[in-house]
Amino acid sequence: MECVFCKIIKGEIPSYKIYEDEYTLAFLDIALDVDGHTLVIPKNHCCNVVDSKNEDYLHVMSSVKKIVEHYVNDCKYDGCNILNASGIAAQQSVMHLHFHIIPRKNDDKLDAFMNFNGAKHGLDEMHQFLKLK
Amino acid sequence: MECVFCKIIKGEIPSYKIYEDEYTLAFLDIALDVDGHTLVIPKNHCCNVVDSKNEDYLHVMSSVKKIVEHYVNDCKYDGCNILNASGIAAQQSVMHLHFHIIPRKNDDKLDAFMNFNGAKHGLDEMHQFLKLK
Repeated sequence: MECVFCKIIKGEIPSYKIYEDEYTLAFLDIALDVDGHTLVIPKNHCCNVVDSKNEDYLHVMSSVKKIVEHYVNDCKYDGCNILNASGIAAQQSVMHLHFHIIPRKNDDKLDAFMNFNGAKHGLDEMHQFLKLK
Repeated sequence: MECVFCKIIKGEIPSYKIYEDEYTLAFLDIALDVDGHTLVIPKNHCCNVVDSKNEDYLHVMSSVKKIVEHYVNDCKYDGCNILNASGIAAQQSVMHLHFHIIPRKNDDKLDAFMNFNGAKHGLDEMHQFLKLK
C-alpha cells in the first residue's frame, strides 16, 4: 500500500495546503484535535529524521521556520510548538517524515510537554552513555 | 541577569555536554524528568525559532539530526522525539532557542503527544486563515 503522504503530495488525496515549494509541502492535519495543527513533509519519501537525507531534512526545517514565523508574525499567534516523532517507539504514526506545528495562544490551556515519568538513571551515567565522542 | 544557556556556553555553569561544534552545543537537561533528555542550542543567542537567524537555526537542526542518529544507531534507542517551544504561550521556559530531544524505547510508556483539547474551528476556516499566500 502506497504511503498516504506521498498520495497527498501527488494530489491523489486532497489536502488543506498551507505552503508548498519544490521540496516540501505543509498541510493541515485533519484530526481536528487542535486548531491549526499543521504537518510539514518532504516531497522525497523518507521514513523519519534518522533515515532522511540531510538536504531533504533541512528543506523541511526551513519550511517549518517559515510557517512558524507566518503563524506568529502574520496570523498573530502568541507562539508555536514544533514536534517530531521518529520511530514507532516515539509514537510515529505515518511512516513519512513529518514535523507537527501547533500554533499557540496565551490562553489556550494546552500542555505541550510530554508525560515524563522520571529519570531512572543518574546524569553521570547517562552522560557517559550518550555523549558523542 | 544573563541568559543561563549563554552561561553554559561560556562554561560559567557546568553542563553534561553531549555534542559541541563551532555553532551549537548539546547537553543533558538536569531536570531528571526522563532519561536522556537532551537540549540543543545555538551559540549565538536568540530567543526562539521566530527571531533566530536562518543559519543559526539550521546549524541547530543539523546538530539535532546528528544526535538523533547517534541515539538510535549507536546508543540503540528505538526512536526519538524532537520538541521545541517558541514563545511563552508555547511553554518556552528559558528564552534562548532550544530543541529538546527525548530518546525513546519501545516499552518506555511515555506519551509524546500534547494534551490536545479539540479543534474549535473547521478545517476550511483554519485553511483560509493560515495558508501562506
